[in-house]
Amino acid sequence: MNVEPRKATDSLVVMTELVLPNDTNLFGNLMGGRLMYWMDIAAALAAGKHCNAPVVTASVDNISFEAPIKLGNVVHIEAKVTRAFNSSMEVHLNVWGEDYTHQYKYKSNEAYYTFVALDPNRKPRQVPPVIIETEEENKLYEGALRRRQIRLILGGKMKPNDAAELKALFVKD
Amino acid sequence: MNVEPRKATDSLVVMTELVLPNDTNLFGNLMGGRLMYWMDIAAALAAGKHCNAPVVTASVDNISFEAPIKLGNVVHIEAKVTRAFNSSMEVHLNVWGEDYTHQYKYKSNEAYYTFVALDPNRKPRQVPPVIIETEEENKLYEGALRRRQIRLILGGKMKPNDAAELKALFVKD
Amino acid sequence: MNVEPRKATDSLVVMTELVLPNDTNLFGNLMGGRLMYWMDIAAALAAGKHCNAPVVTASVDNISFEAPIKLGNVVHIEAKVTRAFNSSMEVHLNVWGEDYTHQYKYKSNEAYYTFVALDPNRKPRQVPPVIIETEEENKLYEGALRRRQIRLILGGKMKPNDAAELKALFVKD
Amino acid sequence: MNVEPRKATDSLVVMTELVLPNDTNLFGNLMGGRLMYWMDIAAALAAGKHCNAPVVTASVDNISFEAPIKLGNVVHIEAKVTRAFNSSMEVHLNVWGEDYTHQYKYKSNEAYYTFVALDPNRKPRQVPPVIIETEEENKLYEGALRRRQIRLILGGKMKPNDAAELKALFVKD
Amino acid sequence: MNVEPRKATDSLVVMTELVLPNDTNLFGNLMGGRLMYWMDIAAALAAGKHCNAPVVTASVDNISFEAPIKLGNVVHIEAKVTRAFNSSMEVHLNVWGEDYTHQYKYKSNEAYYTFVALDPNRKPRQVPPVIIETEEENKLYEGALRRRQIRLILGGKMKPNDAAELKALFVKD
Amino acid sequence: MNVEPRKATDSLVVMTELVLPNDTNLFGNLMGGRLMYWMDIAAALAAGKHCNAPVVTASVDNISFEAPIKLGNVVHIEAKVTRAFNSSMEVHLNVWGEDYTHQYKYKSNEAYYTFVALDPNRKPRQVPPVIIETEEENKLYEGALRRRQIRLILGGKMKPNDAAELKALFVKD
Repeated sequence: MNVEPRKATDSLVVMTELVLPNDTNLFGNLMGGRLMYWMDIAAALAAGKHCNAPVVTASVDNISFEAPIKLGNVVHIEAKVTRAFNSSMEVHLNVWGEDYTHQYKYKSNEAYYTFVALDPNRKPRQVPPVIIETEEENKLYEGALRRRQIRLILGGKMKPNDAAELKALFVKD
Repeated sequence: MNVEPRKATDSLVVMTELVLPNDTNLFGNLMGGRLMYWMDIAAALAAGKHCNAPVVTASVDNISFEAPIKLGNVVHIEAKVTRAFNSSMEVHLNVWGEDYTHQYKYKSNEAYYTFVALDPNRKPRQVPPVIIETEEENKLYEGALRRRQIRLILGGKMKPNDAAELKALFVKD
Repeated sequence: MNVEPRKATDSLVVMTELVLPNDTNLFGNLMGGRLMYWMDIAAALAAGKHCNAPVVTASVDNISFEAPIKLGNVVHIEAKVTRAFNSSMEVHLNVWGEDYTHQYKYKSNEAYYTFVALDPNRKPRQVPPVIIETEEENKLYEGALRRRQIRLILGGKMKPNDAAELKALFVKD
Repeated sequence: MNVEPRKATDSLVVMTELVLPNDTNLFGNLMGGRLMYWMDIAAALAAGKHCNAPVVTASVDNISFEAPIKLGNVVHIEAKVTRAFNSSMEVHLNVWGEDYTHQYKYKSNEAYYTFVALDPNRKPRQVPPVIIETEEENKLYEGALRRRQIRLILGGKMKPNDAAELKALFVKD
Repeated sequence: MNVEPRKATDSLVVMTELVLPNDTNLFGNLMGGRLMYWMDIAAALAAGKHCNAPVVTASVDNISFEAPIKLGNVVHIEAKVTRAFNSSMEVHLNVWGEDYTHQYKYKSNEAYYTFVALDPNRKPRQVPPVIIETEEENKLYEGALRRRQIRLILGGKMKPNDAAELKALFVKD
Repeated sequence: MNVEPRKATDSLVVMTELVLPNDTNLFGNLMGGRLMYWMDIAAALAAGKHCNAPVVTASVDNISFEAPIKLGNVVHIEAKVTRAFNSSMEVHLNVWGEDYTHQYKYKSNEAYYTFVALDPNRKPRQVPPVIIETEEENKLYEGALRRRQIRLILGGKMKPNDAAELKALFVKD
């Protein structure tokens, strides 16, 4: 079991897809559910790359939809681990659409997924801590703790008062 | 444009699916991404039923994974609108797995999706307010405001200090 | 092996689907084959719910197409066991299309499928008889015998003269 | 509009498919619904070949399941028009499974589908009568009338007493 | 292990498909990748029929695209073994599109795939030689050797100078 | 119409996929046809990125299968334009499999696809020449001409004697 700390950047997964007719909704744009399916795979690959073990989806914490991706456009998905908590890893995803003909690229989505690593008996197993190298990675690392506290509060597994970092946002601000 | 208030219960959508080999991950359980795809459709149908207009996914606020659904088991998805905010609606989803042979039914997921209603020019349009009838619906209605504040803060569209209802959780507790 | 009689209504399965571009034929309507695929799953679930055992399709006795379901419309499928014969169960299905935007719901299909329950050695096993509670259920229960006779005659497993109930339709009428 | 009579044999469509993992049920055999989807396409092609016009599924009159087709086996589907009635055509299908490794071919299904031909305004249009050449084709041609009477009686569009050919089966036998 | 020579014609596989919306590219024509998927199955079936053993794709030597197949048109694929080399078989494919409404059939593709037969330990196993009966088959049989030499040279497994039959094309011409 | 020469490296497309149950053949490995489908999309994206116009598949010149990719492994596809010929572009693809759990990455396939760029009237249009920067790119650029000559000879559009560069391989060697 390798739990030596590993760089966030080593977990980066780049996925490229094309929006085909069977991926679209009635407006001719990429269906939300189809994109979530692709993001789930990209994020699971990033988590698996970080811990070298099988992983399963534990939660989706937030997916924002900023602009629809059109039929015939290219979908760029980038997934990278932000922080590890014992046996779980938070993965951050950025999604862009691109129209090659008009050479126009636009941000479409951002999301946070959480995965748990499993041992051969399908029990949670320890994962490597994440080494941070850039300011962007540090901001995601810091936020991961607050997002985890929101998740635990929403799931009834933590009292708001115990979520020190999250609470600080409201009291200090 | 019909914006007369409508009962939450009138938006209820019940979806039943069977987990087939092509829906499973390497553990023989329903893939997270495949379930998110079904939930997106069920939730969009509930939102569309509430406002009688085309809707698009605006955000996924939280999806929890409590127990995996096994190959050959039945997936029950229930989606219902919890609250409306001008042109957007929050939809709450409950998901259960069921094994008919062993007559065993288990809770697997819970989620919150947000949709926006569009007019024929694809601009956001007003949606009907939600009428609450049960205590359960009231709890979801109350929570919707706090979840919206979390979403706006995470998206950088609100300052924590302005999220009065959310802040109250931390200060009063 | 539980073969206590069970209520028809306990086997009810409700399925909701959305007609997406990849489900349509060249007229922009739901393809017949795609609908049969969904109905097969809904009907198998109703049969499995009735007998709590794995089931396989034994025959499709009749599927009528009354109105096409359009792209973007919702598909409602209801499946319920009508009658049991030793190891087989007839399932009746009703299908409706619905256009949420125009608040218009219409009957599209009706069908009868037959399933056989299997034991762990994949041999047919006894299934519970069906308890009838409504006049509608009784009509379906009565008809099931005649539909079975038609099926056996078409399959060369019964002589028309031995199909007493079916024969009565022609001789008495 | 070409309604010159055409030979049944000219409408023959041969379809060959391979049973892949995503086509199977929990027993590792071809799912009933997946086969119905393929049969619907094969039958529609046979009907379209006969009348050179777009066609839509009008009813499925009977599908028998004699033996399951296993994962990795080949599916052979043959579809041929049996008889025309104004704007509708009955199509007969035979399905075989084949295991190339063991050089074993077996009958699995037989079915009758009915299609309606449409004109450019999507109204039913006249189709060519069918020319019969073999005894097998004649038997199917004769039976088509009785199957149509069963269909009309089941659909409430004909009284049993008016179904002369069908009635004869019971009275004469 | 049956390695008695077998006729090329006995390996013929005929596949018929319909171009549906989810098979098309942005021009409303059959996507190249979707056609390659169907051709791979048709060719694998022809190879499996020839050797009665499981086969895996070893290479695709050439696929030409002469005319696009339109949405709603029929795809006819014919696959036949041209020649055997120890454990490998070359398969030749012809593809036509057909528009039933306008009774217009056109050649769209031609391709050569190579498959290897495997024994139960997944090692290559001997396959039967091919018996040639027509001039067309003979031309394909002759060409197979040259195409194999091109493949081996491109793969760095043969020096151009050792490809006698291929070399003759350039030196004699 | 931008036909300023562009760097080969600017057309690079990186695609990452996961082998799921419905992508596998009977040996539990990625199906050849499924991989060709993904490669067709990756290659089309690389060609489209190079010329900023819609493209269609013109031919597949060679796909080698060196090692199978197993269920649960990751598929890495890299596609890059090698050379332009008036309105056509050759794209070179490398494919690797990767097992994250065992940290093992292996080369599985290599391929050459050719695409044609289309103008708004669906007629072939001029594409930018390719700027070569590395020795590897130069080798692919040189080979592209010989592969094109093989393709033209196989398609009966060039006589072997006119394929100077290809002929040189056999005469000089």
